[in-house]
Amino acid sequence: MWEYLDKISSPVDLKKMTIDELNCLAAEVREFLIESVSKTGGHLASNLGVVELTIALLAVFDMPQDKVIWDVGHQSYVYKLLTGRKDGFSSLRKFGGMSGFPKTEESIYDCFNTGHSSTSASAAVGMARARDLCGEKYNITAIFGDGALTGGMMYEAMNDAGRSKTKVIFVLNDNAMSISKNVGAISKYLRALRQKPTYFKSKEVVQDFLAKIPVGGAATARGIRKIKRIIKATILPTTLFEDFGFEYYGPVDGHNLEAVFNAFEHAKRTEKSVFIHVLTKKGKGYQPAEEKPQDFHGISATGSVKEKDFSQAFGEKLIELASENKNVVAVTGAMPAGTGLLEFKAKYRERYFDVGIAEQHAVTMSAGLAISGMVPVVPIYSSFLQRSYDQVLHDVCLQNLHVVFPIDRAGIVGADGETHQGMFDISYLYAMPNMTILSPAGYKELGQMLDYAVNRFNGPIAIRYPRGSENKSVPQMDFSFGKGHELYSGKDIVIFTCGRMTATALECRKVCSDMGIDAGVCVMPTIKPLDKEFLITHSEGKKLAVTIEDGVIYGGFGAAVSLIMSENKSMPPLLVKAFADKPITHGSVSELDKLFGMDAEAICRQIKQIMFSEEKNER
Amino acid sequence: MWEYLDKISSPVDLKKMTIDELNCLAAEVREFLIESVSKTGGHLASNLGVVELTIALLAVFDMPQDKVIWDVGHQSYVYKLLTGRKDGFSSLRKFGGMSGFPKTEESIYDCFNTGHSSTSASAAVGMARARDLCGEKYNITAIFGDGALTGGMMYEAMNDAGRSKTKVIFVLNDNAMSISKNVGAISKYLRALRQKPTYFKSKEVVQDFLAKIPVGGAATARGIRKIKRIIKATILPTTLFEDFGFEYYGPVDGHNLEAVFNAFEHAKRTEKSVFIHVLTKKGKGYQPAEEKPQDFHGISATGSVKEKDFSQAFGEKLIELASENKNVVAVTGAMPAGTGLLEFKAKYRERYFDVGIAEQHAVTMSAGLAISGMVPVVPIYSSFLQRSYDQVLHDVCLQNLHVVFPIDRAGIVGADGETHQGMFDISYLYAMPNMTILSPAGYKELGQMLDYAVNRFNGPIAIRYPRGSENKSVPQMDFSFGKGHELYSGKDIVIFTCGRMTATALECRKVCSDMGIDAGVCVMPTIKPLDKEFLITHSEGKKLAVTIEDGVIYGGFGAAVSLIMSENKSMPPLLVKAFADKPITHGSVSELDKLFGMDAEAICRQIKQIMFSEEKNER
Repeated sequence: MWEYLDKISSPVDLKKMTIDELNCLAAEVREFLIESVSKTGGHLASNLGVVELTIALLAVFDMPQDKVIWDVGHQSYVYKLLTGRKDGFSSLRKFGGMSGFPKTEESIYDCFNTGHSSTSASAAVGMARARDLCGEKYNITAIFGDGALTGGMMYEAMNDAGRSKTKVIFVLNDNAMSISKNVGAISKYLRALRQKPTYFKSKEVVQDFLAKIPVGGAATARGIRKIKRIIKATILPTTLFEDFGFEYYGPVDGHNLEAVFNAFEHAKRTEKSVFIHVLTKKGKGYQPAEEKPQDFHGISATGSVKEKDFSQAFGEKLIELASENKNVVAVTGAMPAGTGLLEFKAKYRERYFDVGIAEQHAVTMSAGLAISGMVPVVPIYSSFLQRSYDQVLHDVCLQNLHVVFPIDRAGIVGADGETHQGMFDISYLYAMPNMTILSPAGYKELGQMLDYAVNRFNGPIAIRYPRGSENKSVPQMDFSFGKGHELYSGKDIVIFTCGRMTATALECRKVCSDMGIDAGVCVMPTIKPLDKEFLITHSEGKKLAVTIEDGVIYGGFGAAVSLIMSENKSMPPLLVKAFADKPITHGSVSELDKLFGMDAEAICRQIKQIMFSEEKNER
Repeated sequence: MWEYLDKISSPVDLKKMTIDELNCLAAEVREFLIESVSKTGGHLASNLGVVELTIALLAVFDMPQDKVIWDVGHQSYVYKLLTGRKDGFSSLRKFGGMSGFPKTEESIYDCFNTGHSSTSASAAVGMARARDLCGEKYNITAIFGDGALTGGMMYEAMNDAGRSKTKVIFVLNDNAMSISKNVGAISKYLRALRQKPTYFKSKEVVQDFLAKIPVGGAATARGIRKIKRIIKATILPTTLFEDFGFEYYGPVDGHNLEAVFNAFEHAKRTEKSVFIHVLTKKGKGYQPAEEKPQDFHGISATGSVKEKDFSQAFGEKLIELASENKNVVAVTGAMPAGTGLLEFKAKYRERYFDVGIAEQHAVTMSAGLAISGMVPVVPIYSSFLQRSYDQVLHDVCLQNLHVVFPIDRAGIVGADGETHQGMFDISYLYAMPNMTILSPAGYKELGQMLDYAVNRFNGPIAIRYPRGSENKSVPQMDFSFGKGHELYSGKDIVIFTCGRMTATALECRKVCSDMGIDAGVCVMPTIKPLDKEFLITHSEGKKLAVTIEDGVIYGGFGAAVSLIMSENKSMPPLLVKAFADKPITHGSVSELDKLFGMDAEAICRQIKQIMFSEEKNER
């Protein structure tokens, strides 16, 4: 039982509370989050940081008529909690349960889905323009972190919005952190702003004063206007955000409810687009999270032990390669911990570049490094590499530059859901000229691939590996570039696979065997270019060929195999097993495999069906 | 014969000339460009604007040891002319001739290939870091327009570079234009800066003065340092670029050689990263181009008459739809003329949004418009839409929003070459959940598709059409969503095609007929989802199925057909004709078709070969 929290069934209830009561509510919200997220796992530190901000937002604005877009979205737990979704927390990020991100289908209080960084401002501008065209009046707020300000989209949105007549409210939730410590010029710039709280706050007052100076006859008027301009230009400092045409308000102490209230009240009142700078502390109110917020960014359910994963295996191998090859440099888009680069950072500081949440720049900057003789290794999560599609294609591939792309979190990632599933990388990379794509099933192979990519290859090369650990049921393999590898031969059908799905294919072999079907299993660690000879040789004389991959069906591994199969009349029919052409919700990897018919049982049922109907046809 | 120009065989020759001589050279360069580009076609106005800038650059720096990256790159003609490529101008942008963009394979003076906007700064940062790691000393300059500053990548690069210890020189070539007039807050901001030339130039002097104030004992030192800081903060104005950590220098008159010299000399000398703001006039020195620079951005060879094209057909239909449907809004990334939106802009100003060269924002902003009930129509060139891959996928497709993407310049575009070929859109869009893709062969069909997409569809939908005009040899067709359409039946083989290649397929039918092969031709205006029934029915009993498309092979139309064919044993073998997995150089469309074996003759030779070997196999 919660004294205050239980009184909130919708945001209207917040409006009835006094500041003191709301402060008590804030304390309860923190307690609830720590308790609940420790049980389920999820994003903790960022949510503890926005408790007061969210309470003020809901108390000042009239949701859902007024609207808010949470950038990235994993800091929306407090908002969910206070907009009638308290019961959802027991199923947070679970299959069929509440999403860890805003979802329009989940609540009328969520108006735009987010997941990747720096989209909120653009979405807000679009929604605001639609509002104006419809002649309606309500407020639209985008809330983003200082990390988001390292992403270029934010400036595109500010450039478009700042001088337009459409009102939007931008709220910078400045905690000096991305997932790790924030980097770059903007970060330093914000640090400077942070040190002059009263200075900027007084600005409106000065402007009011100036406005009150009476303007007399025509000639005098011109003179006075000029003086006003001079005073404004010299006495009033300007911020970057004012240069973009916004009214700047701040910095505001984000844990002082009254201060945040005032800022939001002002934003609600004014006719202009406002940029509110709120200072918060990631992990606020929970000692361990305040001290090491990066460790509490996303937490696992209590008791789960972190075992070695692909990211770590990558990081370890990279250290080794970097010690031998002085040209190896590492580039990250604000994900040193997630991608396994922390040790590299510590050991090779001068060859390590964290460019912020700026995948576009990360890739083209790497093209610049490569064209000058370095060997940039740029680990990026599959779904985030989408941001630099054009840079990979236009700057790296068309120039055939030697950039190594370890693609982390490739394939199903699980609890983060739709926006984070790494389903598309094979597909979007495959069509790029000069691109080579590898996919290891285990750490040993990953290490050999990385060595190959760094030391014995020249050109763009991607190595995709899944979130999590290697599957112990898959034998350790040696990597041989461009070659397929037969794990088991089988007389009836042949299964071609790669990466995580190697384990599934091996399981299929067993299930098939129980059905009386003898299935061979071949791995294709080099996805592009495909070992065409191998594919043909191992398919000939079989009744069915099957491909299994951890990615979307169109343009993927199976589709590339299909191009080879379909031109050749002597090939058996091909069953391409990949994830269907749909958004993929959150859940555990095995739950999602099942949901999409990508588990061994479902695949074998389909194989059996095809074999059976084939046999019927033959009779 | 040219008095000054003929003396320049390499940039070293520039260094021997006096300012007066260089000014004479500048005049000759202009004369040469106007004469030459009028004959060949190409980018004129932007090059006339950078004559002095380029001369100063080459005279001050030591190329090719020092390096320059031209953003976008179509303003590199003067640079090419003065770095030993004068003879190339007669073959400018022609097949086998000189490229209209920087190309490392063309000259040692070109150090990084460009084409799309806003990449130069990132590339420069990467190259500068490589230089530092190698312990070398030379200067790297990125030159970009004010249009490039509307693209987010620039801010990602500035954020990363501005406070790093790596020196780069950024030169803003500010002509207040993208291809059309530049837009947004940055544009207004630069206009304000332009009005205070001396103010900012004096800044260095003040700083020198402050540096000379002696600092005494410890306590006094602290005091004086504090006073210095205060003077700096209050007296010295700061620019946006200083906020990002750069030393700002300017604005400099870009047509005053001496002024540009001084700026570059300073940049060369200093240890810090510098941001030089140069003011230029697009089309400078050529009256018609100065007056209407947008008309002289890219010009055709004299005498060529512009006929109606797909962009215009799109623009006309959109006007019609907008008059009937008040929710239709148009969004462009700085390309109102190129995409055919000028009339829409004039007629429906309040429903028209030019967001700058900011495709990412354009798309997510459109998602915001769509989620609020508008029907955004967002025409973007195929190769530029690559910039918003993640936004199309993450913000539009995953949320299944009704955004209409007319994809202009889809397929081979010709003279602009590698970076501008629209080869990838089918491939990258096909894998996106909820995406629908259409491809018209003519204007009538385009009009019906647009009507369908706007008024009778709900969800993300793309309509891809080529650069240039419809082919008169293709019959006018009526569009029926999701349906294939047989133009001719044939007993031996069937050809499936769409868009521009419909004409090629019809030609193939004729050539095949001469070879004694009866080829049917079917068009598939709905590329996704494919009419599977139709494909199977029309393939059954044929000896060969062929697909022909104006795009890259992997993940394209043929690959999608292949997925259907290969799973079905009763299907004939499939020949997928698409552009090979390689960068595609500049040349005319028909030259490039030939080069890649995509003309009717080459395709039919291959068909014949397959049919013949098939027959042999059957015997």
